[in-house]
Amino acid sequence: MAAFEFTVDATEGAARAGRLHTPRGPILTPAFMPVGTGGTVKSLTMDQVRSTGAQVVLGNTYHLMLRPTAERVEALGGLHRFMGWEGPILTDSGGFQVMSLGRIARVEEEAVTFASHLDGSPHVLSPERSIEIQADLLGADIAMQLDACIAWPVEEAAAAQAMRLSARWGARSSAAFGRRPSQALFGIQQGSLFEALRRESTQRLLETGFDGYAIGGLAVGEGHDGMCRVLDYAAAMLPADRPRYLMGVGKPVDIVEAVARGVDMFDCVLPTRSGRHGQAWTLAGPVNLSNARFADDEAPLEPTIDCPASRDYSRAYLHHLVKSREILGQVLLSWHNLAFFEDLMAKVRAAITAGTLGRMRGELARARRPSL
Amino acid sequence: MAAFEFTVDATEGAARAGRLHTPRGPILTPAFMPVGTGGTVKSLTMDQVRSTGAQVVLGNTYHLMLRPTAERVEALGGLHRFMGWEGPILTDSGGFQVMSLGRIARVEEEAVTFASHLDGSPHVLSPERSIEIQADLLGADIAMQLDACIAWPVEEAAAAQAMRLSARWGARSSAAFGRRPSQALFGIQQGSLFEALRRESTQRLLETGFDGYAIGGLAVGEGHDGMCRVLDYAAAMLPADRPRYLMGVGKPVDIVEAVARGVDMFDCVLPTRSGRHGQAWTLAGPVNLSNARFADDEAPLEPTIDCPASRDYSRAYLHHLVKSREILGQVLLSWHNLAFFEDLMAKVRAAITAGTLGRMRGELARARRPSL
Repeated sequence: MAAFEFTVDATEGAARAGRLHTPRGPILTPAFMPVGTGGTVKSLTMDQVRSTGAQVVLGNTYHLMLRPTAERVEALGGLHRFMGWEGPILTDSGGFQVMSLGRIARVEEEAVTFASHLDGSPHVLSPERSIEIQADLLGADIAMQLDACIAWPVEEAAAAQAMRLSARWGARSSAAFGRRPSQALFGIQQGSLFEALRRESTQRLLETGFDGYAIGGLAVGEGHDGMCRVLDYAAAMLPADRPRYLMGVGKPVDIVEAVARGVDMFDCVLPTRSGRHGQAWTLAGPVNLSNARFADDEAPLEPTIDCPASRDYSRAYLHHLVKSREILGQVLLSWHNLAFFEDLMAKVRAAITAGTLGRMRGELARARRPSL
Repeated sequence: MAAFEFTVDATEGAARAGRLHTPRGPILTPAFMPVGTGGTVKSLTMDQVRSTGAQVVLGNTYHLMLRPTAERVEALGGLHRFMGWEGPILTDSGGFQVMSLGRIARVEEEAVTFASHLDGSPHVLSPERSIEIQADLLGADIAMQLDACIAWPVEEAAAAQAMRLSARWGARSSAAFGRRPSQALFGIQQGSLFEALRRESTQRLLETGFDGYAIGGLAVGEGHDGMCRVLDYAAAMLPADRPRYLMGVGKPVDIVEAVARGVDMFDCVLPTRSGRHGQAWTLAGPVNLSNARFADDEAPLEPTIDCPASRDYSRAYLHHLVKSREILGQVLLSWHNLAFFEDLMAKVRAAITAGTLGRMRGELARARRPSL
């Protein structure tokens, strides 16, 4: 039996609106998880994050194991207390960032050996060590299995090799995790853009058995259409009674198209990263507030979103802050962007319940450059 | 008759606890004004500023006239609306920053001609233009006369010349300001560390007549003891029935010693500047949160201060944010520091009312390196 109950309240085609019941409260799905990286959703206080409607935040094992170290977080009461977030936390396994940020020394059956991007110090990450960090030291509510990530394009043989290594690491992650009544473990489907590999990966994950299933290895260079083609088959392979989590995705149009294919959970750094770079998100994409056309624009970013950053400041003021390189500009734009993504998810959930997700997909696909 | 009523509720020696009644509500004095520079109290939202107990914020004419320009702020509804602050705003005249940041071309009787530090563009600031910017365009509740500032050490002849130019600019500022029922104009006493010049400056200011009187030309290199020696005579020269404002000061010990000599209002960038550089203020001075001794310190910065940044995060977490150069570290430390300064002012006001400011001065003087 899975650790957390998952109930589906409404469906529209493959899309579902549901609830993942965690000991820290329910997560309404489809859900967007802000990325907490090294113990902070960049530039925002946790009160600001909460105010956007975010229900669950993501913590990065790679960043936290290097600084302040997982042992220090544990000594300080765990990640929830350390960063001041009472709601559920999902942690990644560290695998993706070891490969994107760390300097890999060796990927072996037993573990990955790498050098820290901070100081070059040597580290080893195995499936068992990743579970120890996530579940025992950080105290994640949802832990992820260690997996081997590869970018697109890739040869099928290399993709198969990485998928099978991920599957074996998944089985070891599950054995290390054991049975925990108040924590969940998700497996990760791999196989790049090869349907047969996605099917084999799913089969191996099901043999191990997880509380939820992530789709990994997308948003790595295949593009929106490539991602959609994989999701056309990959999401439906995963068990319908468990949550499906598309890792590292994405833009509003990516999210809505993935929801339409049966995905329930998302995480992405886009809202906060765009905000730090002076960009405000709209349904049509990000707009750059440094553009001179905003210098005298008295309108707020988006008055219908219940967030001070979206509602209470003029675009002219935000333009001024961005041009002046003021920290408050980064804060307010990150805040608006997160509120925008959470508002989008609320609209997606409402649309599925009302049976209007199809119309929402059409509107989003027609959206061009923003009028804002 | 002065534009804003000023009432003194309690005194202890020369110190007074009072209220400056503005159309936007009373300012309890002694008061500390956060510096809003170019339309933002750096790194903080106005809700965060409000939550510290700040009653009035300062705006900088020099910064705002260059960017976004005073005319643009006026077109956007004035400075209160632009930056989202409903309470009183005091603006400086621009004189101090023209001389510290701008590249001065000429200081003449008529005006100061300077080049912008942003793009080298030429600008002219006269007493009349400064009043137009502050009172008409930005819409300040309290405007300051244009003055000529000089650093210490300085020859008496040069100090006298700058003081007399300031006095003439004060008279022109007053004439340009005229009579306004809902805005106030403060004069600025100059004269460096020369008592006779401070006396002559005061005499000239009184001939013009202002709604309040600032003490300028301190915190420019004379040190704490030099400042106190000037305040021993300079504050008492100014009329007892009007607020006295010591510009650009300062550290807690400077503020408390100035209050004991009869000063009612202060402004300083220290709380926010220190915060952006990883420092947390205590009664004994700033401590650097990057210090390794905080890495495992579970205590909050100051649990008795009613501010999330002071109360809800461990020093270990703040240390982690500072070491990781996270924006949230700058935000939380700026927020704590502002709350610390506002808490200090509330304690100062309560001490005057209770007749215990003398004891508070003694405790502050004995404070050494902080235990935190």
